[in-house]
Amino acid sequence: MNYRKKFFVEPGSKVRLNDVDPSFTGKHESADEAREAIAKDCDRLAHLQYRLYAENRRSLLVVLQAPDAAGKDGTVRHVFGSLNPQGATAHAFKVPTAEEAAHDFLWRAHKVTPARGSIAIFNRSYYEDVLVTRVHDLVPKDAIPKRFDRIAEFEKNLQQAGTQILKFYLHISADEQLRRFQQRLEDPNRQWKISESDYSERPYWNDYRKAYEDALEHTSTERSPWYVIPANHKWFRNLAVARIVTETLDEMDLQFPAPTVDIEEMRAKFHAAEGEPAGKA
Amino acid sequence: MNYRKKFFVEPGSKVRLNDVDPSFTGKHESADEAREAIAKDCDRLAHLQYRLYAENRRSLLVVLQAPDAAGKDGTVRHVFGSLNPQGATAHAFKVPTAEEAAHDFLWRAHKVTPARGSIAIFNRSYYEDVLVTRVHDLVPKDAIPKRFDRIAEFEKNLQQAGTQILKFYLHISADEQLRRFQQRLEDPNRQWKISESDYSERPYWNDYRKAYEDALEHTSTERSPWYVIPANHKWFRNLAVARIVTETLDEMDLQFPAPTVDIEEMRAKFHAAEGEPAGKA
Repeated sequence: MNYRKKFFVEPGSKVRLNDVDPSFTGKHESADEAREAIAKDCDRLAHLQYRLYAENRRSLLVVLQAPDAAGKDGTVRHVFGSLNPQGATAHAFKVPTAEEAAHDFLWRAHKVTPARGSIAIFNRSYYEDVLVTRVHDLVPKDAIPKRFDRIAEFEKNLQQAGTQILKFYLHISADEQLRRFQQRLEDPNRQWKISESDYSERPYWNDYRKAYEDALEHTSTERSPWYVIPANHKWFRNLAVARIVTETLDEMDLQFPAPTVDIEEMRAKFHAAEGEPAGKA
Repeated sequence: MNYRKKFFVEPGSKVRLNDVDPSFTGKHESADEAREAIAKDCDRLAHLQYRLYAENRRSLLVVLQAPDAAGKDGTVRHVFGSLNPQGATAHAFKVPTAEEAAHDFLWRAHKVTPARGSIAIFNRSYYEDVLVTRVHDLVPKDAIPKRFDRIAEFEKNLQQAGTQILKFYLHISADEQLRRFQQRLEDPNRQWKISESDYSERPYWNDYRKAYEDALEHTSTERSPWYVIPANHKWFRNLAVARIVTETLDEMDLQFPAPTVDIEEMRAKFHAAEGEPAGKA
């Protein structure tokens, strides 16, 4: 199945998250059956990263957005955990610091966009500024459509500098979220992750959903696509994200750069050096 | 074998790199035989990283220094490639930018030291400023011992903020270096890595060695240890580094933090929410 086609938010289309089945798994039936496919994609991803790094001309920005417990951290660990940390960074966007809040909403994100040859994963992002800020009325209502425009321009600027952008909305049901919170509560190694807001944000579920639908509708483009990933099943979420990232990098046709030295000449020099002691006499 | 003991540069000891066998492999005989041990350590490392991240109180700084082709990149990939990129960064120190060169030599390193809960790997580091700068007379001779002092103070400051420091010198022979350059020349996917300096730096081999010996002697402490890792065999290098890092993190006795919420109370709230629709009526 072509996940890039199936989960892509068509520019100008109406997004209705309630119509997307968060438990979708395609033809795959179980985690066991999918495991091999995921491992293969992650392995391929590591190889493609090396080419991206070597080519040193383009970069990749992956944006992850989702309700709490929908699996942002898990996606970072399971899909991007196989990347070489030299050339890959994952950045978790938290409540803005005083310095960050003293700037425009894109400022803190711009500082950590991927350099040529590298991959940046945004766990949350500047999209929070049209989501949580909207749901909790932290900005005037008319700020949101303006921010959609600023985001589109920001992403266009990155693209023109060679950054491929991929944006994933991890789609879970409210019931699945509740189940995951309850599981965390029973796991002594994960109880520290529970916060009051896990419960207190629950009444805003529909408001968030509406905010997401609007954001996806207004900011998905062919060059900077949003994908709605069914995420009730963690393994399917991992598989779909890994597949889309890998296929996208594949299509970029990454090339090793030409040598910067005369290979024949270096061959001769190194050959002559054989048996000679290194260092000055 | 206790690698932390065997490869540790004792504070105040005289370092003679020519007396250390770069082909040492201990009781291990082959890459195949060691592979399982490396995989086990890397797996354990990923678990310890999660605890470090969860505890959010301390951090780890790994410094890699070595001659060209000694395996810094390979160590990052093979030992630290299993880390979650959220909470781990690898930073390659290149020729300083104009802005970096306009500051003291520790400035650019300080900006990328690990935050609480995270791991930073330095591929080269501020130690270049007592190595390459010394060999090529880029700073006055009397600057070097002063820099040793500044480095000791810098590292002490990091330690007091909760950063565990581990420094590895990857030790290869000049012959092995030559062999690796020659191999790269014959590999179309790696020819781009060859630079003129690979050959032109070779006459300085002994000068570098002396500079390393001095640096190791003056900056290895119990709290900020240097290890000289035999690195002619890549697999042994990976095994030794992985083992030392893992044992060090193990000894830190990393703890999951206490929950910030009343677990009983949350349990009751989530239970009451079962079956209720999420979102405001």
